[in-house]
Amino acid sequence: MQNKQWILSSFPKGDIQDGDLVLQENELSELKDNEILIRNIYLSLDPANRGWMSGQASYVDAMQIGDVMRGGTIGIIEDSKNEKFKKGEIVNCMGGWQEYLISDGKGVRVIPQNTGFPLDSFMSVLGMTGMTAYFGLLDITDPKEGETLVVSAAAGAVGSIVCQIGKIKGCKVVGIAGSDEKCEWLTKNLKLDGAINHKTENVRKRLKELCPDGIDIYFENVGGPITEAVLTRMNIKGRISLCGLISGYNAESLVPGPAWGNLLIKRIKLQGFIIFDYYKRMMESFMDLSQWIKEGKIQYKNDIVPGLENASTSIKKLFSGENKGKLIIQVSEDPTS
Amino acid sequence: MQNKQWILSSFPKGDIQDGDLVLQENELSELKDNEILIRNIYLSLDPANRGWMSGQASYVDAMQIGDVMRGGTIGIIEDSKNEKFKKGEIVNCMGGWQEYLISDGKGVRVIPQNTGFPLDSFMSVLGMTGMTAYFGLLDITDPKEGETLVVSAAAGAVGSIVCQIGKIKGCKVVGIAGSDEKCEWLTKNLKLDGAINHKTENVRKRLKELCPDGIDIYFENVGGPITEAVLTRMNIKGRISLCGLISGYNAESLVPGPAWGNLLIKRIKLQGFIIFDYYKRMMESFMDLSQWIKEGKIQYKNDIVPGLENASTSIKKLFSGENKGKLIIQVSEDPTS
Repeated sequence: MQNKQWILSSFPKGDIQDGDLVLQENELSELKDNEILIRNIYLSLDPANRGWMSGQASYVDAMQIGDVMRGGTIGIIEDSKNEKFKKGEIVNCMGGWQEYLISDGKGVRVIPQNTGFPLDSFMSVLGMTGMTAYFGLLDITDPKEGETLVVSAAAGAVGSIVCQIGKIKGCKVVGIAGSDEKCEWLTKNLKLDGAINHKTENVRKRLKELCPDGIDIYFENVGGPITEAVLTRMNIKGRISLCGLISGYNAESLVPGPAWGNLLIKRIKLQGFIIFDYYKRMMESFMDLSQWIKEGKIQYKNDIVPGLENASTSIKKLFSGENKGKLIIQVSEDPTS
Repeated sequence: MQNKQWILSSFPKGDIQDGDLVLQENELSELKDNEILIRNIYLSLDPANRGWMSGQASYVDAMQIGDVMRGGTIGIIEDSKNEKFKKGEIVNCMGGWQEYLISDGKGVRVIPQNTGFPLDSFMSVLGMTGMTAYFGLLDITDPKEGETLVVSAAAGAVGSIVCQIGKIKGCKVVGIAGSDEKCEWLTKNLKLDGAINHKTENVRKRLKELCPDGIDIYFENVGGPITEAVLTRMNIKGRISLCGLISGYNAESLVPGPAWGNLLIKRIKLQGFIIFDYYKRMMESFMDLSQWIKEGKIQYKNDIVPGLENASTSIKKLFSGENKGKLIIQVSEDPTS
């Protein structure tokens, strides 16, 4: 049995280049005792993937040249020699950029069926993306009614959920995004109090107009000049949830951060987090987010690209900002749809 | 009655220059109802003074050209038309760089006498300096026994108290300072586990040797390359207490900070603070610190320079690192000594 796999063939320098990932067809080994065979259905493409390719260990081990590209997946169990898993179960794991996966079941979680939510939502709002937004905002910044929340990459998969949770919690929410279309979606559809197109507007000036009472909470997805602009308007005792720094992920050398002076004189709490630390609290976010979706308080968009062969090209959209919602590769047919 | 006063005559650009502060002799006005006349005894010189001279409001209003230079003082009440204060009481306030001060009593606190502690200790370990160390370490970073604490400007007024509180709490403590003499004082006298002379040693390499288990807590007084070096060795869930950034205070333009990537992947909590926020909890630090001094667990050094006329020259020692302990100007005779 053949298995198409994307293999890391070189560590990207700057932007991911075509040769950095190579699509290969390899023979699948026989299933041994205790193993399961998973057919990948959906593959998650995330900004964090770029860091995993850097050759540097971070919160996960460094990938090595020759490894199957790492990625979060939803799949279906096609065969099982492990008593904990049954054929036909839908599961979520780090299944990688490939058609099939043989696993010993470690890190594999069963996704409940017949919930009324489409399967791909478990890869976005009801999956890691939603959890990131939920805990990154609520656990780290503890938003209070009437506070001003600014979110960068606000139209992105995580950012758009953060914005809507902020509104649910009674915050004034201003989003920063990279196109007029995204800004319009934020204000018209998600009912944000304001949106700034950082590609065409002066972010510092617009923040002054849109946040006359200053900024209490900043949800950080980007780094760079946007962060500098936000810091100048932070209020005393402000909180920053440090979720991502996408503007620097393709940089060939480390980009300096903003001066810390504003963090000091404004007594700001800045907290970095990695969603893996919150897996044990997954049910909290699932309960709230699924309820809010049912109540129409949270909208989400998934940008599903068919075909594993398109993964390497599609991931670049995250860095150019071309994706419309959570970027997902459909690897094979979704039996639930 | 004449009053010598240091007047801010220009906003320093970069290092403080001789003409930025000018010593003048001005007539003291008559005491009105509700006012008190304070003779300054001790004047506190602190790195934060530089920021107050910048012409930019921060956590305090900006000083204006022509203002008496701002500074913390200990003085004695020589005359009172305010029923809350009596002649002969020793008080602490923001009395400024001058011989005398007329005040309405706002922000003036009486210092208890006959405590067994010399009066100048209320300007260092039992005053704002000690409070800064106490709350900046304990409240912000919550140190646990066995954790590794790194302190920059470790031989300074605040840093040296932080180091000793760290030892009391059972931490492994490594200090970074600017001379061999300071480093020797840290390890020999204060019993630190290690000290690094950042002027002659490779900080990154030495941190690796001295902190084999990584760094759990960083008490930040300096900014710049030392901070960069510390960040590379921080442990997951590390905490940074952002107290000061002295390396940048004389910079003519804002110095960028370190990249935030390490804060993100290590899930670090960085918290800025200003000690003024903790005044209401002053008794907590006073009780603990006074007890620790009595038990011989905390040592402190005051560098007392006689003569108000030397204030302007002496403050430069803070930025060159020449001061030996808490820098204090003796403005007039201490009646308690």
